Amino acid sequence: MIVVLSGGVGAAKFLQGLVKAVDEKEVVAVVNTGDDWYLHGLKICPDLDTITYTLSGQVNTEMGWGRKDETWNAMESLERLGGETWFRLGDRDLATHLFRTQRMHSGATLDVITKEISKAFSIGCTILPMTNDTVSTKVQVENKSEFLDFQEYFVKLRAEPRVSKVVYQGSESASVLKEAMDALLNADQIIIAPSNPILSIEPILSLSGIKECLFEKRDKVVAISPIVKGKALKGPADKIMAELGLEASVLGVAKRYFEFAKYLVIDNSDSEYSDEIKRSSMEPVVLDTIMTTPDVAAGLAKEITSLMNINQIQTS
Amino acid sequence: MIVVLSGGVGAAKFLQGLVKAVDEKEVVAVVNTGDDWYLHGLKICPDLDTITYTLSGQVNTEMGWGRKDETWNAMESLERLGGETWFRLGDRDLATHLFRTQRMHSGATLDVITKEISKAFSIGCTILPMTNDTVSTKVQVENKSEFLDFQEYFVKLRAEPRVSKVVYQGSESASVLKEAMDALLNADQIIIAPSNPILSIEPILSLSGIKECLFEKRDKVVAISPIVKGKALKGPADKIMAELGLEASVLGVAKRYFEFAKYLVIDNSDSEYSDEIKRSSMEPVVLDTIMTTPDVAAGLAKEITSLMNINQIQTS
Repeated sequence: MIVVLSGGVGAAKFLQGLVKAVDEKEVVAVVNTGDDWYLHGLKICPDLDTITYTLSGQVNTEMGWGRKDETWNAMESLERLGGETWFRLGDRDLATHLFRTQRMHSGATLDVITKEISKAFSIGCTILPMTNDTVSTKVQVENKSEFLDFQEYFVKLRAEPRVSKVVYQGSESASVLKEAMDALLNADQIIIAPSNPILSIEPILSLSGIKECLFEKRDKVVAISPIVKGKALKGPADKIMAELGLEASVLGVAKRYFEFAKYLVIDNSDSEYSDEIKRSSMEPVVLDTIMTTPDVAAGLAKEITSLMNINQIQTS
Repeated sequence: MIVVLSGGVGAAKFLQGLVKAVDEKEVVAVVNTGDDWYLHGLKICPDLDTITYTLSGQVNTEMGWGRKDETWNAMESLERLGGETWFRLGDRDLATHLFRTQRMHSGATLDVITKEISKAFSIGCTILPMTNDTVSTKVQVENKSEFLDFQEYFVKLRAEPRVSKVVYQGSESASVLKEAMDALLNADQIIIAPSNPILSIEPILSLSGIKECLFEKRDKVVAISPIVKGKALKGPADKIMAELGLEASVLGVAKRYFEFAKYLVIDNSDSEYSDEIKRSSMEPVVLDTIMTTPDVAAGLAKEITSLMNINQIQTS
């Protein structure tokens, strides 16, 4: 079994390659839910949905999130009403949130609902929310005392204000999903996806028991750097790392992960950092990490799973 | 001021005529909210929306509810997810529910939200929910002990089961909207729209103070029969009246309203009942009540407002 600690777009692209490289039934994505929130009364889980849409071939590949062949009539009408439209919800995408909200109101838990959605989208691997409890990533920005909702900071303010602190509200009392913890304990390999270390991976790591499990299994833990040549491939990871006093480079990533991950996958263009990564007690793995197509992602996944001699799908 | 006690489709058609017949600023619709409910976490107010869409020319005239030029991508996707799609929510219509729900979560009251929506739809008359409190019309059907949600009975079961009882849950403790009560107290004329007497008008009448006000002002109260030649023009009013032991005819309507309404407007085709209506202590007003076009509705409204010598718009 291969467990992937996942954020949104970067993780989704990697998972899309991974399920082409190995038996998809062996793949378990444990997904950040710290960005989840309620808008217009609807429960929205951005990372879960991005992964579902990507793996089912339903994602809008230009944006990396949302659904392809989408229409925007609800948003257009909402705009005329003077409603909040900065968080764009397409008509087809809305259905996912309507379904999830209705099921939650009926008492279903998020993991069960996520499986129902996965099934409807014919997903072959397992997608798990990190927890059924509420964990809310909140961001404090410069010159403000109150914490912003993640989406307010990330989407409404386009991640522009300087970040002074990030907290994962509720994570002390939240329980890791049991199925996720069991998967981690039994995993042949644990991969930390190329997602934002602070906004996407840390909410997962903040849950009691996860880091301990990774420490125990450090030899099987591989992190993929989301930073290439000092820049995030997508999103503001580099900016936020710098704002929080972390080096925005593969070395900064190594500093966050070395205690519980043996390997750090870095892009060819960062090969010069190999020796320094070794000095941070991680083993560098230099590969093409820029997943321009699912085939490139599959190639990356093959190399990474080879580290643990995992059975791969034979391609002719 | 003219106050119209309103349900959905029939009331909307009459209001569309009324605002052509008299100064729209003098028209106040006090609208049934007993059919309101939450679906997929969204607050839905069918009668308020039907009136808004109709008065703004945005209604789907074929269905009588929902929006014209509507798309159904959210419902189509929801169906694939196995979600509840028997209550059809078009993509543009969804925006109204998203807006209302978001505003309610922000602490706004239904009357304020209704005004915001009215303004966005450029409605010139005043649309008021009967109350800001929750009143839920519940229907008990034959051979069942529990009460069904109104929409479950009305839409999901297509009003097919035989009704044994209707209750207006919460109406004892709900307060009439103050603005609605003030309008009633100051009204030059109070019109009971041609809406279902049991499902649409009675929830309004069940609120403390409304019937008392109508008793007081009986000479100014005009009811329009929703029953023509023993049949409801739309919906199951005739069926339900019969099931509850009331005569499904203009006489049955007279029996429900005579105590607090002086006039009963009946269709030309029911003129034979005039004498009997007089014997039920109501004054029959025989008119063309079948509102096939807004102009027919305007003609009907002119005749009705003439009863109280209300200033009419001069048409050349």
